[in-house]
Amino acid sequence: MSTHSSGDRKGSDSTSGAAPDTTAPSNTMWGGRFTTAPSEVMERINASIDVDRRFYAQDIRASQAHAAMLAECGILTQDDNTAIQDGLERIRQEIEAGEFTFSAALEDIHMNVESRLRELIGEAAGRLHTARSRNDQVATDFRLWVRDTIDALDALLADLQAALLDQADAETETVMPGYTHLQAAQPVTFAHHLLAYVEMLGRDRGRFADCRKRLNESPLGAAALAGTGFPIDREMTARALGFERPMANSLDAVSDRDFAVEFLAAASLLGVHLSRFSEEIVIWCSEGFRFIQLSDAFTTGSSIMPQKKNPDAAELVRAKAGRLVGALNALLIVMKGLPLAYGKDMQEDKEPVFEAADTLALALSATTGMVRDMKADRERMRAATTKGYLTATDLADWLVRVLNLPFRDAHHVTGALVARAEADGRDLAELSLAEMQAVEPRITEDIYEVLTVERSVASRRSQGGTAPERVREAIAAARERFLS
Amino acid sequence: MSTHSSGDRKGSDSTSGAAPDTTAPSNTMWGGRFTTAPSEVMERINASIDVDRRFYAQDIRASQAHAAMLAECGILTQDDNTAIQDGLERIRQEIEAGEFTFSAALEDIHMNVESRLRELIGEAAGRLHTARSRNDQVATDFRLWVRDTIDALDALLADLQAALLDQADAETETVMPGYTHLQAAQPVTFAHHLLAYVEMLGRDRGRFADCRKRLNESPLGAAALAGTGFPIDREMTARALGFERPMANSLDAVSDRDFAVEFLAAASLLGVHLSRFSEEIVIWCSEGFRFIQLSDAFTTGSSIMPQKKNPDAAELVRAKAGRLVGALNALLIVMKGLPLAYGKDMQEDKEPVFEAADTLALALSATTGMVRDMKADRERMRAATTKGYLTATDLADWLVRVLNLPFRDAHHVTGALVARAEADGRDLAELSLAEMQAVEPRITEDIYEVLTVERSVASRRSQGGTAPERVREAIAAARERFLS
Amino acid sequence: MSTHSSGDRKGSDSTSGAAPDTTAPSNTMWGGRFTTAPSEVMERINASIDVDRRFYAQDIRASQAHAAMLAECGILTQDDNTAIQDGLERIRQEIEAGEFTFSAALEDIHMNVESRLRELIGEAAGRLHTARSRNDQVATDFRLWVRDTIDALDALLADLQAALLDQADAETETVMPGYTHLQAAQPVTFAHHLLAYVEMLGRDRGRFADCRKRLNESPLGAAALAGTGFPIDREMTARALGFERPMANSLDAVSDRDFAVEFLAAASLLGVHLSRFSEEIVIWCSEGFRFIQLSDAFTTGSSIMPQKKNPDAAELVRAKAGRLVGALNALLIVMKGLPLAYGKDMQEDKEPVFEAADTLALALSATTGMVRDMKADRERMRAATTKGYLTATDLADWLVRVLNLPFRDAHHVTGALVARAEADGRDLAELSLAEMQAVEPRITEDIYEVLTVERSVASRRSQGGTAPERVREAIAAARERFLS
Amino acid sequence: MSTHSSGDRKGSDSTSGAAPDTTAPSNTMWGGRFTTAPSEVMERINASIDVDRRFYAQDIRASQAHAAMLAECGILTQDDNTAIQDGLERIRQEIEAGEFTFSAALEDIHMNVESRLRELIGEAAGRLHTARSRNDQVATDFRLWVRDTIDALDALLADLQAALLDQADAETETVMPGYTHLQAAQPVTFAHHLLAYVEMLGRDRGRFADCRKRLNESPLGAAALAGTGFPIDREMTARALGFERPMANSLDAVSDRDFAVEFLAAASLLGVHLSRFSEEIVIWCSEGFRFIQLSDAFTTGSSIMPQKKNPDAAELVRAKAGRLVGALNALLIVMKGLPLAYGKDMQEDKEPVFEAADTLALALSATTGMVRDMKADRERMRAATTKGYLTATDLADWLVRVLNLPFRDAHHVTGALVARAEADGRDLAELSLAEMQAVEPRITEDIYEVLTVERSVASRRSQGGTAPERVREAIAAARERFLS
Repeated sequence: MSTHSSGDRKGSDSTSGAAPDTTAPSNTMWGGRFTTAPSEVMERINASIDVDRRFYAQDIRASQAHAAMLAECGILTQDDNTAIQDGLERIRQEIEAGEFTFSAALEDIHMNVESRLRELIGEAAGRLHTARSRNDQVATDFRLWVRDTIDALDALLADLQAALLDQADAETETVMPGYTHLQAAQPVTFAHHLLAYVEMLGRDRGRFADCRKRLNESPLGAAALAGTGFPIDREMTARALGFERPMANSLDAVSDRDFAVEFLAAASLLGVHLSRFSEEIVIWCSEGFRFIQLSDAFTTGSSIMPQKKNPDAAELVRAKAGRLVGALNALLIVMKGLPLAYGKDMQEDKEPVFEAADTLALALSATTGMVRDMKADRERMRAATTKGYLTATDLADWLVRVLNLPFRDAHHVTGALVARAEADGRDLAELSLAEMQAVEPRITEDIYEVLTVERSVASRRSQGGTAPERVREAIAAARERFLS
Repeated sequence: MSTHSSGDRKGSDSTSGAAPDTTAPSNTMWGGRFTTAPSEVMERINASIDVDRRFYAQDIRASQAHAAMLAECGILTQDDNTAIQDGLERIRQEIEAGEFTFSAALEDIHMNVESRLRELIGEAAGRLHTARSRNDQVATDFRLWVRDTIDALDALLADLQAALLDQADAETETVMPGYTHLQAAQPVTFAHHLLAYVEMLGRDRGRFADCRKRLNESPLGAAALAGTGFPIDREMTARALGFERPMANSLDAVSDRDFAVEFLAAASLLGVHLSRFSEEIVIWCSEGFRFIQLSDAFTTGSSIMPQKKNPDAAELVRAKAGRLVGALNALLIVMKGLPLAYGKDMQEDKEPVFEAADTLALALSATTGMVRDMKADRERMRAATTKGYLTATDLADWLVRVLNLPFRDAHHVTGALVARAEADGRDLAELSLAEMQAVEPRITEDIYEVLTVERSVASRRSQGGTAPERVREAIAAARERFLS
Repeated sequence: MSTHSSGDRKGSDSTSGAAPDTTAPSNTMWGGRFTTAPSEVMERINASIDVDRRFYAQDIRASQAHAAMLAECGILTQDDNTAIQDGLERIRQEIEAGEFTFSAALEDIHMNVESRLRELIGEAAGRLHTARSRNDQVATDFRLWVRDTIDALDALLADLQAALLDQADAETETVMPGYTHLQAAQPVTFAHHLLAYVEMLGRDRGRFADCRKRLNESPLGAAALAGTGFPIDREMTARALGFERPMANSLDAVSDRDFAVEFLAAASLLGVHLSRFSEEIVIWCSEGFRFIQLSDAFTTGSSIMPQKKNPDAAELVRAKAGRLVGALNALLIVMKGLPLAYGKDMQEDKEPVFEAADTLALALSATTGMVRDMKADRERMRAATTKGYLTATDLADWLVRVLNLPFRDAHHVTGALVARAEADGRDLAELSLAEMQAVEPRITEDIYEVLTVERSVASRRSQGGTAPERVREAIAAARERFLS
Repeated sequence: MSTHSSGDRKGSDSTSGAAPDTTAPSNTMWGGRFTTAPSEVMERINASIDVDRRFYAQDIRASQAHAAMLAECGILTQDDNTAIQDGLERIRQEIEAGEFTFSAALEDIHMNVESRLRELIGEAAGRLHTARSRNDQVATDFRLWVRDTIDALDALLADLQAALLDQADAETETVMPGYTHLQAAQPVTFAHHLLAYVEMLGRDRGRFADCRKRLNESPLGAAALAGTGFPIDREMTARALGFERPMANSLDAVSDRDFAVEFLAAASLLGVHLSRFSEEIVIWCSEGFRFIQLSDAFTTGSSIMPQKKNPDAAELVRAKAGRLVGALNALLIVMKGLPLAYGKDMQEDKEPVFEAADTLALALSATTGMVRDMKADRERMRAATTKGYLTATDLADWLVRVLNLPFRDAHHVTGALVARAEADGRDLAELSLAEMQAVEPRITEDIYEVLTVERSVASRRSQGGTAPERVREAIAAARERFLS
């Protein structure tokens, strides 16, 4: 078992044994639970080591910064500091090499590390915890972890934006219906459609960045809750760990989990964005649309219906929104009504965050993979624009622009013309000028220029509009804003 | 690795590798993700074996019932059936002995079992899947698992009720303040207070029982979604698996996850009940109350403040409500807006349910442990009833009953008397008769009989009231209703 | 009342003033809030009359039952009782005639009614509140209201089932693709598809019925929390109000809101069911499918694109799932961690329930309307079954049944045949026997019998399967189970 | 309008009729619903005017900016523009004077305003809608409304911070126990405790500010979804409405509701903060604590127990967290899985936001009121610090600092001393030096200096610590950061 599985959520038997593990062949095991020694139940519910060992790197980093500060402030000798630094470094290596034995009896990552440190360096280990407590320690570790995770997710988000922009580059002239109510409304380009997601993801990155900025303050030195009488230098540890400043209030420092909630809120909204895109992929892959094709890499088939390409990855990504919103909800509920400063309730903060981080990393990778994998079926998309009189708005706009009809009147004329065309299954462009003039005598030959899908798209040159020239500018601007 | 860790939620490296695993010493690993082969991402997001292997016993049980039915209906030879039954039995033993190698490439528990069966018995294994599909198979397995889990949880719930009733037995004469708004209102007995939770848990058991009853229909035979042309006998497999009947509609059979949602809804409300009790324990353990004591078994101390007994277990149980409601929310969101019949989204149904089951089992065990462990401090409880004029209502009731004052007028008189007593810090019983008569001349000596806490409690003899005799009856009735 | 506050949801000026009512032209109004008298804020947040007056009928009904019981038990004179009964009756009439003036200063419906009663009948009104409190009174009212609402919703649910069954009756021979992953999988009938929803709604009705049964106990007589010393008869009021029995524990009686949570849980799952059906309607109405048509009654058009029929009603119903789950979530959070017996938090129980009831009534009516309004486009549905080799499973089943191939081998052969057909765009039935025999020599002419969509559908005669004869039986059985 | 429907939350009869209005005396009314004309149901579910008329000011403002731009760009004549500006101004006045008649048949605020404009100015009204659609119009209105609301809430948040800082100013020397697990841990000052909330609220303001900044882009000009062919100037309308820039993608402009979700996420977390403070108020008001007193303005009493001051306002604020999180959850669910660009589902976006805004405004006002109203009971707080050996950490720190014991060893010595003191109910300061030296011989007389609560508090001078001098600095700094 590799060290990395320490990220594993319920990895130890001691924890899983608490569950109604009906995987067992009979019910005899349940007897055991009924007579479970209280201490066993308590250890199971109390220990967090299966969860928080995922913090080991952050915990060691923070301890190293703390020890260095203690030494600098004269609270620790340089010798002790050196021993501590080396000992912690060795522990890090042991963990990464999978040679570290985690113990549930030692409850959490902090005690596991400190206990091992004592084995390695003796009494000096006992000096490391001077002027701090597990309350400020875990708050520090968790902030560092969320910060690292945001950096990692930001890279995945940029990667997905890059994939969308690359697809968009290739499809600036590809027309497709723009939908409202899943009813074709006006023609747009596929590139333009993809760019909408680039914008959403840009806001997602902004939210994570804001979260990162707001969380980037150091709780270290708040100690149990009241601060400490040791002459510590909180600025120094803050700087060493990349925080912008120490947190201003020691009670708040140990009781705050805003950063975790804010992370989950950003994750939930991102999850909703991905669910929207996934829904579109599922619809686009359906026989009724067939706007895109996904390769075998992102679909599953059926041994019996080889033409069937189930967009499983998109469905799974769509579903992940549930998991993410559930995690946000869980943590908000945990924190509701908690008095200051620290309650054990707050130990339930990490699992939702870890779960959300894992879920997002996977969902983003899968979505990026699908975007790079998808092939637009330009003919099917173009064909879909020919049904539904998608240029009716263009006709109405022509009436307004050229004949100066009030918009509402132009709507009325257009409605009459569409009804006429629809009556015998023709396109608007197939109506004769005479037929048009029968409805509105001032219509001229020029009107035919706005009735093709390509003209329609090309005409929407307002800023942010679907005209290929605007879209090409938008792609360039997005690369500049998001990827440079 | 023991078999039980198959209940483990993210146990394999292949899955956990997808996470932004910032446990790694540097960011180099992230490079790997960016260039992850699509197939690798797809395998990670698609494979469910780390989750659904927890179904193995149910999957094998259902396959055995299916094979037996196929043989009975002449679709399978008896020889093939025998081989299948024996092979499946052997696989069960291998899994339980921890000798089975699960493969993510084989995606799920169904394919893992079938693949191993083919190794063991050859071609006949290929006949097992006749007249079924993974869609009805997984629906069957999941229902069986939830049913088994409900049975296990019901036992844990009964155990907690028993613990509460045993505590109540010992405390039928123990008076304490009954609170509204966390303000003492009227005296009650501790037993009476505990019985309120026995009622809540009784309703919880009722909800799980209703869920169990409603889910206890067999999806088997719905096949992919449309039923099958093979002359199968759905009644037979339903009976063999303990279901009351086959489900009535094959599309519904494969697309329904109501039972999982209903299970999570019952779990959430139970979680809220446990959170209420936990809140009370936390408050009762606080210095301001000290109504109960928990032993070391359910508290954690501080090496530095040995008198400190932190009610960690209660806080953790209180927090679990968040997890449970989050799980319910997650699954509702997954199912929202899914067209029939089956979408891969539905693979996200199991983790919330497993998580909730594990959480509940642990929270129930811990709560039962705390109830059995807690010692009521009868003196502190009694002392708390002497502050706050808790018998004011009794005085008012006397005025109504004996003097026939309208209730609202009796309130007014009582208010005046309490104000008088409060003015110099006396109890109601310490007011002289003259003082009382100054407010309401018809008051007699008899009134003093209702002003003690014990009298107050004893007088509330209405059905379900707090009088010790009622509470003793209620305990007996509850044992009869819930534990016999 | 100014117009601009009327968009406000709370309806009354006293409440709406507290909102950041940015509808006002400038910010001057905010100045007012900053200097709001505390008493004004308190009245706004504390008063519930704008919400709970919806209980008026239940409140009066319960008061009448209570007074009758007090009289029967000799606690109230018959004269007082008569005065109370008549007075309450008159208040009911005043409210229903719109002649009653509700007052926020009187806080809630209970005090509004009692205050008016005192105006009408004088001192006797003050005797009504004997042996009860607002705590058991509001619990009783709320239970009665939820019970009435469940009865009303049950009728709406039955109505929707009837609409689905009527549609199904007309479409037992209408074939359409059965989908998994929104990919056509096997042919089914439209009737069969609709019946899946009849089953879901049947379970919804079951959940509401279970909720109704469990809530149908009387809190009346629990008084403030401890019961009462008056010699009341709780069985009598329980019977009079249609409850099955008095609640067993007085603390539980006033602190329990399980019934509201359970109602919301049932509502949420029903909302998810409706969202699934709505999603299908939206997809079926899209140009890529066009399986059904909705009339103008349930769509909105565009004055400019008259052919456009936006399925707005379906989209709105789909969205309502959010509202319902939000309401459930809200109440679970309100109740989390509340100590016994009563906290003012619990006043937040009614709005989510009222909101959910209104939402469901509207969503059910709209869905029933759509079902009755929708016209199946049988040709489009039939045409959709001809793409995607929907009878491949039938072919494989034939190989198993007739040639005795193991299922997995049959899959393999079928895959090869589909690949062959797909290569030049033919149907399976268009492959020659020779071509088939090239893949599997034992195939005979008989195989063509299973390759048509109609044969496929007709063959799925297993219980609950899609064969028209089964579906007709299922319709009859559903009418029997649900509508008789 | 009948009285009984007015308790109904939707306010208008047309809407409320859809609800299972069981306020009616009998069930006859239900018959009506079953035969409700489809068009009536559709109007009820479709119309949003009861909700979105709250936008009127924003809608008019945006229309004025749009018309001015059309005129500037030569798309509208100056005469028409003038007529439109004046007409819209007049409509605004009519609405604010309560003289405007809203019509459900006209569906929404946009059509109500335009229809009235046509009455007022004739044909020119029909030119206003040139180059826009309801899709970009509603998105613009909603953003403006949320922006205005954030500004209003920010002022309320600052007001609450000011109230907390004013209280803190008065209580910098007031010692109280700092709690973990609701167990007294170390002494802190009440001012220090209050400042923790100032920090939380500061982050809340930051989140709203970030949300405001991110939403402050103009959707106007996106038209239906594709942009427009009219030569409009989106920068001009953006500037006129105070937006920083036009949104970059027209599809995103009409489909994005991130700003509403982000607003609700910030609101939810703020709600959780307020719930934590409310929980503390409830506990502090309980007999076991009595740390503060609230006046009658924020409590409710009982006519019968006049000493009872129920902290109803705090309980209601605590409960509001449920409402807020429910609203967030609702909107996330509404948006989950919605394909681009616009679906009617999105009409369900406004009610959760309005509800949350109203809830927050009320909860903030009530909390500010309570903070200004509360009186700290300094004696009770001080007395509570004398139980529980709150200076044990100080003793241990002395051992580390003066005797150079490793922290873990110092813990051990301290534990022994506390046990000794506890054995006969003494304080640490009551142990003799000899007794202390029996445990650790190097202890000197100096140790007594750290054993008083005041010394303990004064010693915690680390940045952000509880020492009065630090707290005074922190108050000044907070005023500077948050209120200047």
